[in-house]
Amino acid sequence: MVRILLSGCNGKMGQVITNLARDREDVRIVAGYDIHDNIKNDYPVFTQLENFNIPVDVIIDFSHPSALQTVLNFALAKKIPLIVATTGLSDEQAAKLKEASKVIPVLHSANMSLGVNLLIDLVQKAAKVLYSNFDIEIIERHHNQKIDAPSGTALALADAINQAVPEKYRYVYDRHSSRVKRSKDEIGIHSVRGGTIAGDHTVIFAGNDEIIELRHVANSRDIFGVGALKAAVFIHDKNPGFYTMKDLLNI
Amino acid sequence: MVRILLSGCNGKMGQVITNLARDREDVRIVAGYDIHDNIKNDYPVFTQLENFNIPVDVIIDFSHPSALQTVLNFALAKKIPLIVATTGLSDEQAAKLKEASKVIPVLHSANMSLGVNLLIDLVQKAAKVLYSNFDIEIIERHHNQKIDAPSGTALALADAINQAVPEKYRYVYDRHSSRVKRSKDEIGIHSVRGGTIAGDHTVIFAGNDEIIELRHVANSRDIFGVGALKAAVFIHDKNPGFYTMKDLLNI
Amino acid sequence: MVRILLSGCNGKMGQVITNLARDREDVRIVAGYDIHDNIKNDYPVFTQLENFNIPVDVIIDFSHPSALQTVLNFALAKKIPLIVATTGLSDEQAAKLKEASKVIPVLHSANMSLGVNLLIDLVQKAAKVLYSNFDIEIIERHHNQKIDAPSGTALALADAINQAVPEKYRYVYDRHSSRVKRSKDEIGIHSVRGGTIAGDHTVIFAGNDEIIELRHVANSRDIFGVGALKAAVFIHDKNPGFYTMKDLLNI
Amino acid sequence: MVRILLSGCNGKMGQVITNLARDREDVRIVAGYDIHDNIKNDYPVFTQLENFNIPVDVIIDFSHPSALQTVLNFALAKKIPLIVATTGLSDEQAAKLKEASKVIPVLHSANMSLGVNLLIDLVQKAAKVLYSNFDIEIIERHHNQKIDAPSGTALALADAINQAVPEKYRYVYDRHSSRVKRSKDEIGIHSVRGGTIAGDHTVIFAGNDEIIELRHVANSRDIFGVGALKAAVFIHDKNPGFYTMKDLLNI
Repeated sequence: MVRILLSGCNGKMGQVITNLARDREDVRIVAGYDIHDNIKNDYPVFTQLENFNIPVDVIIDFSHPSALQTVLNFALAKKIPLIVATTGLSDEQAAKLKEASKVIPVLHSANMSLGVNLLIDLVQKAAKVLYSNFDIEIIERHHNQKIDAPSGTALALADAINQAVPEKYRYVYDRHSSRVKRSKDEIGIHSVRGGTIAGDHTVIFAGNDEIIELRHVANSRDIFGVGALKAAVFIHDKNPGFYTMKDLLNI
Repeated sequence: MVRILLSGCNGKMGQVITNLARDREDVRIVAGYDIHDNIKNDYPVFTQLENFNIPVDVIIDFSHPSALQTVLNFALAKKIPLIVATTGLSDEQAAKLKEASKVIPVLHSANMSLGVNLLIDLVQKAAKVLYSNFDIEIIERHHNQKIDAPSGTALALADAINQAVPEKYRYVYDRHSSRVKRSKDEIGIHSVRGGTIAGDHTVIFAGNDEIIELRHVANSRDIFGVGALKAAVFIHDKNPGFYTMKDLLNI
Repeated sequence: MVRILLSGCNGKMGQVITNLARDREDVRIVAGYDIHDNIKNDYPVFTQLENFNIPVDVIIDFSHPSALQTVLNFALAKKIPLIVATTGLSDEQAAKLKEASKVIPVLHSANMSLGVNLLIDLVQKAAKVLYSNFDIEIIERHHNQKIDAPSGTALALADAINQAVPEKYRYVYDRHSSRVKRSKDEIGIHSVRGGTIAGDHTVIFAGNDEIIELRHVANSRDIFGVGALKAAVFIHDKNPGFYTMKDLLNI
Repeated sequence: MVRILLSGCNGKMGQVITNLARDREDVRIVAGYDIHDNIKNDYPVFTQLENFNIPVDVIIDFSHPSALQTVLNFALAKKIPLIVATTGLSDEQAAKLKEASKVIPVLHSANMSLGVNLLIDLVQKAAKVLYSNFDIEIIERHHNQKIDAPSGTALALADAINQAVPEKYRYVYDRHSSRVKRSKDEIGIHSVRGGTIAGDHTVIFAGNDEIIELRHVANSRDIFGVGALKAAVFIHDKNPGFYTMKDLLNI
């Protein structure tokens, strides 16, 4: 059984993971870390890590980029494998993770869902084959409370395509303002917002008389928690190194 | 059998209709009118209408707004029912059509497909019921040679929604530039461009834990020609008045 | 505020409604009725109705057809408007509901979601317009624990189409066993089962070079509870008569 | 420029390829072979191959399994690379193709579209990753004149999945007749028939709170002709061996 220290345990995703871990036998949250101590959990919660001394096998960090340094220092000092599931890291922070991965196993992905990471992988494969003959467009759909657009996952999809093809695409978000034909080097990215949609990403490859569509639909945040727990099981006995969710796909 | 004078017979849609009419027994194109006389048709083509004297029951105009006045004058002088299938009319031209409809039957629609006009009607009904509880978004997809965005049909859908609801929505084409939550009074309109897609319109109503989607997919221009020929049969014996494709729906 | 007696309060849907009602100000569950008294609710639960004496405005029955007679007798005796949300009633039971509706308002629908009932209505309208020129197929998707196929809602959609058109369609569930062309009088009904899909119904109208698709996607059971509570507000002050969810659509 | 002998040149697909080849500079149909000599082509057509003596680089066979032996004998005698695009070969015929591929390059695929073959490849990759946690269902849609169900491509997709996973799935075509929960070892295959749909295949992977969908939509037969011509360019200078369209994907 993998013993987990959950950083950001009292946030939305922290609570999702708390509930999911309760039903699993291969993992157990033995302690939480959060600057807010407002929720009663079935494990002890610490508001600082200074004298933390409970043995753990993996740290899952679902808190906030501003907390990263503290968690990273702790993981390095104690030599504990670390999963960073927060998004919006600065370039400097990303570099520090890479540096730390020489000493401990570090796993970081923009999206913790295995399904989304599979989608990214399939989209890359398709882009390689269809390049130059098919136009690529991405439609993402999310609930009406989401403030950023496009979604981080839509950007991750577009970036993954650009890594796979010989000449980079540029991203186009609006065709309303101009009256020109689509150019071959565009990826159109469309952000639909409405209702309570948890997350829905479609990549369209449109060619002559044929279309290929690859789509992932998420119906709850649980899938990100499930992914994080699988990542914990995956990483707990690995050698130091930098890992992503793609390493769990076994492709 | 309804005898048709086809204005714009040598354009793309004119030729589509020419081919479709050949296989039907309820209509016959007895003459064409076009400023270009470059195509050999199985009916006589006139480059002006001055001395045109062949008896016809209906005029279908699929030419260009600049030709409208000539065609309209001719229809009024001869008292022939007129179908105007060109788009992009000025307000003044639209007013002239309305005026002419006091004397002859006039049918005008932004989109000649019966299926699209049915979609518009269903979308209006849905908007009335779902208003205030559901967010509305429109995704249209067209081939990569289309220069205008959004499509005229996407705008017709949005306008039809606005006619059906108590308070008007505003149209939003890009969410990339701003970091704000979706407002209740938005309709997001997304223009996907790629490959050879003939025409594809989806209206999404997204509510709490449920989504209603209404979609029309066109696979060729033929559907617009079929609609125009049905309109000819519909209008040929009607009283003077202003008609739209909606009048053919029998709802 | 509408006071509700919830029959079947300790079943799955009963608990969904219990949670939803807590957040609303226009309704309140003042008592529950269930043969199982195993759950602690924030209202009193009765295992029989004999001496039940709390004043209520509406009864919602989400229990089981076998409990219908008891609930119906009670509603008739006390002259309380009744919503029957159970499915699988016998013809005899359906007749009794009609009979009772001469004395009290009775509302019964196969599916309590307003969105699904809107879909049914739109599908009927489309079927009237497209009849004889378009082929109709229905795809429903549900989770892998559902044992009946097709879903009651898929059948309700097909039946509604048959009410709207001049000649009845027959339902086809399998094309694998025979090597024959599709006949014009078929509606193909396809039952997809997988994962945790809450409910997804698509009606496809396929014609010459065009397709119209009308779809409803449910992401949780909550939508049925919301519909039942709206029905309670709707029916509480109505005259005796037989109502369905369609009466809430205001079309 | 690759010189092609087109077997079955006067059939539907033969004429599609004839038209497509006319617009390409990398291939030329220098002769046709067909038992019917009823169409005027811009190349000579032979009703038997006995004294055929025009130099060709590749044979494309889009005729019928019954003509295979004649074409295969000819290809072997003249050492000409052979593309067999007919479907419904017997096991014996398939074995003969394999045998012939020791002497000449032979390419055979159930579906000549590159896009469909890409879909098959992506579906295999997804099945490997998602196996045991996701349920798989296939929906195929075709026009109302198609007599076989399911489509050969739907079966090819299911067979490809079975090649990729540790324990084979069985195929289920109808859930209407039985009232049982879906079993883990099923792939549901659904054949939608309607209108003029050229070809549409969706593979659904449904898991806990998430769905992955991979879809290919064909809007005309042209895509099969384009694939066959690309296969001709691919195979014309290859060594003897057995090839499939997958070899053109470069994955």
